[in-house]
Amino acid sequence: MIITSKIITEFLQIRQATDEICAPLKIEDYVVQPVVDVSPPKWHLGHTTWFFEEFILVKFKPGYEPYDNRYKYIFNSYYETAGDHILRTKRGNLTRPTVEEVYAYRDFVTQQLAEFLEDQLTEEIHRMVTLGMHHEQQHQELLISDIKYILGHNPLLPRYSQTFEEHQAEKQKEKWYRIDKGVYEIGHKGDTFCFDNEKGAHKVYLHPYRISNKLVTNAEYLEFMNSGGYDTVTLWHSDGWEWKKSNKIKAPLYWYWHKNRWKHYTLKGFKEIDPETPVTHISYYEAFAFAQWKGKRLPTEFEWEIAQEYFDWGKRWEWTESAYLPYPNFEKAEGPLGEYNGKFMVNQKVLRGASVATSKAHSRNTYRNFFQPHLRWQYTGIRLVE
Amino acid sequence: MIITSKIITEFLQIRQATDEICAPLKIEDYVVQPVVDVSPPKWHLGHTTWFFEEFILVKFKPGYEPYDNRYKYIFNSYYETAGDHILRTKRGNLTRPTVEEVYAYRDFVTQQLAEFLEDQLTEEIHRMVTLGMHHEQQHQELLISDIKYILGHNPLLPRYSQTFEEHQAEKQKEKWYRIDKGVYEIGHKGDTFCFDNEKGAHKVYLHPYRISNKLVTNAEYLEFMNSGGYDTVTLWHSDGWEWKKSNKIKAPLYWYWHKNRWKHYTLKGFKEIDPETPVTHISYYEAFAFAQWKGKRLPTEFEWEIAQEYFDWGKRWEWTESAYLPYPNFEKAEGPLGEYNGKFMVNQKVLRGASVATSKAHSRNTYRNFFQPHLRWQYTGIRLVE
Amino acid sequence: MIITSKIITEFLQIRQATDEICAPLKIEDYVVQPVVDVSPPKWHLGHTTWFFEEFILVKFKPGYEPYDNRYKYIFNSYYETAGDHILRTKRGNLTRPTVEEVYAYRDFVTQQLAEFLEDQLTEEIHRMVTLGMHHEQQHQELLISDIKYILGHNPLLPRYSQTFEEHQAEKQKEKWYRIDKGVYEIGHKGDTFCFDNEKGAHKVYLHPYRISNKLVTNAEYLEFMNSGGYDTVTLWHSDGWEWKKSNKIKAPLYWYWHKNRWKHYTLKGFKEIDPETPVTHISYYEAFAFAQWKGKRLPTEFEWEIAQEYFDWGKRWEWTESAYLPYPNFEKAEGPLGEYNGKFMVNQKVLRGASVATSKAHSRNTYRNFFQPHLRWQYTGIRLVE
Amino acid sequence: MIITSKIITEFLQIRQATDEICAPLKIEDYVVQPVVDVSPPKWHLGHTTWFFEEFILVKFKPGYEPYDNRYKYIFNSYYETAGDHILRTKRGNLTRPTVEEVYAYRDFVTQQLAEFLEDQLTEEIHRMVTLGMHHEQQHQELLISDIKYILGHNPLLPRYSQTFEEHQAEKQKEKWYRIDKGVYEIGHKGDTFCFDNEKGAHKVYLHPYRISNKLVTNAEYLEFMNSGGYDTVTLWHSDGWEWKKSNKIKAPLYWYWHKNRWKHYTLKGFKEIDPETPVTHISYYEAFAFAQWKGKRLPTEFEWEIAQEYFDWGKRWEWTESAYLPYPNFEKAEGPLGEYNGKFMVNQKVLRGASVATSKAHSRNTYRNFFQPHLRWQYTGIRLVE
Repeated sequence: MIITSKIITEFLQIRQATDEICAPLKIEDYVVQPVVDVSPPKWHLGHTTWFFEEFILVKFKPGYEPYDNRYKYIFNSYYETAGDHILRTKRGNLTRPTVEEVYAYRDFVTQQLAEFLEDQLTEEIHRMVTLGMHHEQQHQELLISDIKYILGHNPLLPRYSQTFEEHQAEKQKEKWYRIDKGVYEIGHKGDTFCFDNEKGAHKVYLHPYRISNKLVTNAEYLEFMNSGGYDTVTLWHSDGWEWKKSNKIKAPLYWYWHKNRWKHYTLKGFKEIDPETPVTHISYYEAFAFAQWKGKRLPTEFEWEIAQEYFDWGKRWEWTESAYLPYPNFEKAEGPLGEYNGKFMVNQKVLRGASVATSKAHSRNTYRNFFQPHLRWQYTGIRLVE
Repeated sequence: MIITSKIITEFLQIRQATDEICAPLKIEDYVVQPVVDVSPPKWHLGHTTWFFEEFILVKFKPGYEPYDNRYKYIFNSYYETAGDHILRTKRGNLTRPTVEEVYAYRDFVTQQLAEFLEDQLTEEIHRMVTLGMHHEQQHQELLISDIKYILGHNPLLPRYSQTFEEHQAEKQKEKWYRIDKGVYEIGHKGDTFCFDNEKGAHKVYLHPYRISNKLVTNAEYLEFMNSGGYDTVTLWHSDGWEWKKSNKIKAPLYWYWHKNRWKHYTLKGFKEIDPETPVTHISYYEAFAFAQWKGKRLPTEFEWEIAQEYFDWGKRWEWTESAYLPYPNFEKAEGPLGEYNGKFMVNQKVLRGASVATSKAHSRNTYRNFFQPHLRWQYTGIRLVE
Repeated sequence: MIITSKIITEFLQIRQATDEICAPLKIEDYVVQPVVDVSPPKWHLGHTTWFFEEFILVKFKPGYEPYDNRYKYIFNSYYETAGDHILRTKRGNLTRPTVEEVYAYRDFVTQQLAEFLEDQLTEEIHRMVTLGMHHEQQHQELLISDIKYILGHNPLLPRYSQTFEEHQAEKQKEKWYRIDKGVYEIGHKGDTFCFDNEKGAHKVYLHPYRISNKLVTNAEYLEFMNSGGYDTVTLWHSDGWEWKKSNKIKAPLYWYWHKNRWKHYTLKGFKEIDPETPVTHISYYEAFAFAQWKGKRLPTEFEWEIAQEYFDWGKRWEWTESAYLPYPNFEKAEGPLGEYNGKFMVNQKVLRGASVATSKAHSRNTYRNFFQPHLRWQYTGIRLVE
Repeated sequence: MIITSKIITEFLQIRQATDEICAPLKIEDYVVQPVVDVSPPKWHLGHTTWFFEEFILVKFKPGYEPYDNRYKYIFNSYYETAGDHILRTKRGNLTRPTVEEVYAYRDFVTQQLAEFLEDQLTEEIHRMVTLGMHHEQQHQELLISDIKYILGHNPLLPRYSQTFEEHQAEKQKEKWYRIDKGVYEIGHKGDTFCFDNEKGAHKVYLHPYRISNKLVTNAEYLEFMNSGGYDTVTLWHSDGWEWKKSNKIKAPLYWYWHKNRWKHYTLKGFKEIDPETPVTHISYYEAFAFAQWKGKRLPTEFEWEIAQEYFDWGKRWEWTESAYLPYPNFEKAEGPLGEYNGKFMVNQKVLRGASVATSKAHSRNTYRNFFQPHLRWQYTGIRLVE
């Protein structure tokens, strides 16, 4: 019984945390999808709700009727096995259901689920609720970066909040830690929750390396920019160079050249750039080119995991050199949830760590985030190895 | 003085009419741009306001400061000579200014202009206000078709209004009027307002023709569909056939095959199709193919104008065979307003008449509307000639 | 009998003329399709041959078997009713049949047809042969401009011929002829050959105008360029401005800025530009912008036809302001040949006159050529009206 | 001296082998580029020649003047640091230099280089010649697959050769070899030639696995197809599913449904499919989906390298699960040759083994080939692991 109430409390807290992220928004901000990777906040609210409804209430609660049969089509993201869904590119055209209606849907499902858990917390349902809560926390992270994208691409550059702090200098002195060669163990162990892609603790052989305890700062990145890093073809991947050219990239995302200096959009508004703060909103291509320019390289995800205890990580997702691939003995779940991670294991790069947008429960040292190498709207960062 | 108050009244009525069109909308509906040709309602509200502000208050009122200097960038549509403007393709990403802020902007400018007109109604200003009012009425028409597009492409097919009547059968009996050959006069005469593209009354020689007093009905169009009109290549222009194939067109816009019959979305919701009502939401390509199939043709805009007194027109914009070209002695206005019409006089087809979305003041027999031949979101229709 | 031998002679001469156009080519030059509008010379050779085979030998000669059944698929251009055909965009990937095989096909069909005409020159066949010969002459014109495109876009800028003269100054003194208002007759009369789009002689009413007896020269066009014509938005159509921007157009096609001056590629090689020669290889958009800059306009095709006796035309296709539309009483032919012209009567502009690439038999004052407004690879030119 | 003559002989043999691959071609076949990844054979001939000229003769031979200064622009592939080059997408428009001229260029450089080597075979030049020869052998492989693409996409499906054997069944009985867990050594050792991406022999930890000594056959692949493998979303990566849908993929490349059975284009012409032969011309996405369907997986490149002694490999390039990444201590060469491999180390998958198109000297067990996961025009194959 204690466990049940603990879980319900946790569930309600997470649902509320999502609402709080959206609290500063105007209704209009909930609706748009300025690029395909950025979903409307309204859609995140509905989708995380649909996830609980579809995979718990519909599946386990006898006699449960979906709140609105048409919502499945609208709020399914990519679970092809769970039925038809609206094209990801068209989410930004959906003016209805309205924000108010989506919140009503949220409240209804939250309420229904809390009541249902009170009655029936089987092990299987526990597992699904736990997954649903972690799923919602992932969307909290996306909500913050999507909101930043929506507001940061508006010509009025409106402020999101006066208190949300994205940019903080790391206090520790720079130090390069040496890790010896040898066989190490990687991946999640124990009974606590993790995603399927972290499972299968296994051994890897690492060659000796030295890794910095600090992230690359804006000052260092500006030096790269000022020394012509964006125009030096030998520093870049072929794909990266094409991406840079066709998108006319000259600086991190949200940086604007304004009255003879670089400034940047932050959730607190348009601000000066602090040289001591870790650089962010750079693509893997840029991270790689920077490392080349420094005569160093990015860590693999294994090097990162083994050395992470030396860092004060958690403010930036850190690009690694590793491609996003299954661990040995990786197993997909049965049914729609088998689509959660496995089907993305190609053409993506692993990021390790966590960012200012990540909820605490996602800050695991085995956590594997992944994005295509050109994407920049997350709070990405750079750590170097030599 | 009488004239001043009459104009102010008219101005205020037109501004209010725009607001009334938007009254049934939810805030979310104001924001999106599902395709490039459909602007967000919020943008129409701001743009028509900016037009009055930019071309009258800023230009003529001493000491007037724009309400917000950043709005010019956002609400300029295509007047390249009036400064930078946001890309037309990106209007749907603008969550700010909010709907409330746009209405505040509207109210401010309406008020300012009404006061200014009270003081200073010179002839030039009169001409500009008149143009601005007609401009706003054009946008009223676009607002209605854009709103229909936004709601009619939402999977929930929400109703706009219970009273807006788009579909009415023509009551008159079909009759084919014969017009004799000869030299006729075309274009706008007299002192009343018209756009620059209607000016330059001039002569044309017409060959004898017979023209129907009725528009083509849904029943007739269904016959064309059922007889394989969409699959008969010889009925179509080469460009039309490509358009049809790559967009998988099989019926007018808003028609859905539902439980073994065609139904359509209307502003009153999802409805049966009335066979007696004039068909609408068809492209020029479809209108042409239909006429070919009937062994007839579309009228030229001149044939239409000479015969229009025999029709009960005003419910559908009617596609003509005429390309949109300047009349002899066409003259562009000086300055930004020279961009109003002239620069579109290529690659477009003329439509004549008016539609259910047209305000009465735009229902002139010399009025020339124009669209690219593939567009269907206006209330377009077909009239035949032989 | 006399007539039969005369037609066979004419037929053989036209076939030979095509071969002579290709004589200076290397085998490699026959194969490529650098842009969709430019077909491989080899394809022109096969297509004109297929036209005679398909529409005469297959149709009229008892027991005739196609030379190769697979050629129909390859050499059909756009006659949808005549069966499947290779996509126009893929002609440039066809390395087989080889040039040698295509010439063998040509020779076979030429021979067969000549023999067949000797036997069976019915009126219907006479009509078809005549059409086929005119069709081949149209392709001769295309061959020359396509060859120029292929060689003129090769970085080695190879010479096509030492004798082909594209550029000649007009000798006459400039004079502006005034044409009075009135009803005039337009279109082809009499029994001589013309295409279906010229037929239906009919009346038009013309307003008074003055038209130049000279084409615009390179010197005049350079003046437009030097005075910033390409950067002055008010001179351009909206579509033209977009075209210019996205294609970075700054000068006529084949003009290169070379050692501080404009030079151009000609069929004789890379040459100086003669200021007195009529400008060519400009799009309709450029022709229009030039006329705007001059404070004049382009003629309609009717104005051109009525005044043409005053010009020394035949070196440049002249852009007109007219859209390509059917004449009153235009009738499509039955069957595949009904696709010859009618299905292109939208989104195109009429050109009048003839060019250095046009065979004499195509230099009719009623001839209507047509292209999309952005195309420049024909020998287009500008004549002004005021 | 012995070594010099041996190298010259080897050099001449390799140059001749390239010519022999092209011997069955018609001139037309040398010119086209049907898709961006397939270069015109003529271009391969010029490019491999330019490589020797640019990186040896120009660099080391005093007073050497390039054969034609304009060829550098045409035949440079992607060495950005070596100067401007023609866009890869436009190689197929180059009718000049002609095939004859390219062969003259080849002969000239072959002759010059042979003479130069006779005089001056320093160690550095030796290294460069060796690289150039391996480079040319890579292009021999590409030549064969590019020629197959060009001929196999021609509607006439012409035969390339009566003797080139692409398809041979593997004779050995299927056996699954078990490899124990442990630390293994990977990468090239010793003094013989290898590319930079194979260097840096290093340790990896492998978990125990079983691997098949046979490649997947056409019969097995047909079973996958017949059981609906192409329509089962859960077998596919998300990117793979999108690729399959938008390209309407239903079978390996070159397979055609013909008279109620699958047949395929081979270099010997259009043939029956032999069920016992290893399947080929499948993308990584298809290889992965097949393995999922079988309940197995693809090997990593390390698993492949450790187990390769048990296979009879060399007929198919084998897709691995490994992303193409640098080995520990990977070092780019200085100058243009630093672009040889490193800049492609993102968004690609490693293939191991060799194919029927590979020259013997490239059949190393440490050789790493790499392609984007959707490409199929190489002789790719599938080996399974469990």
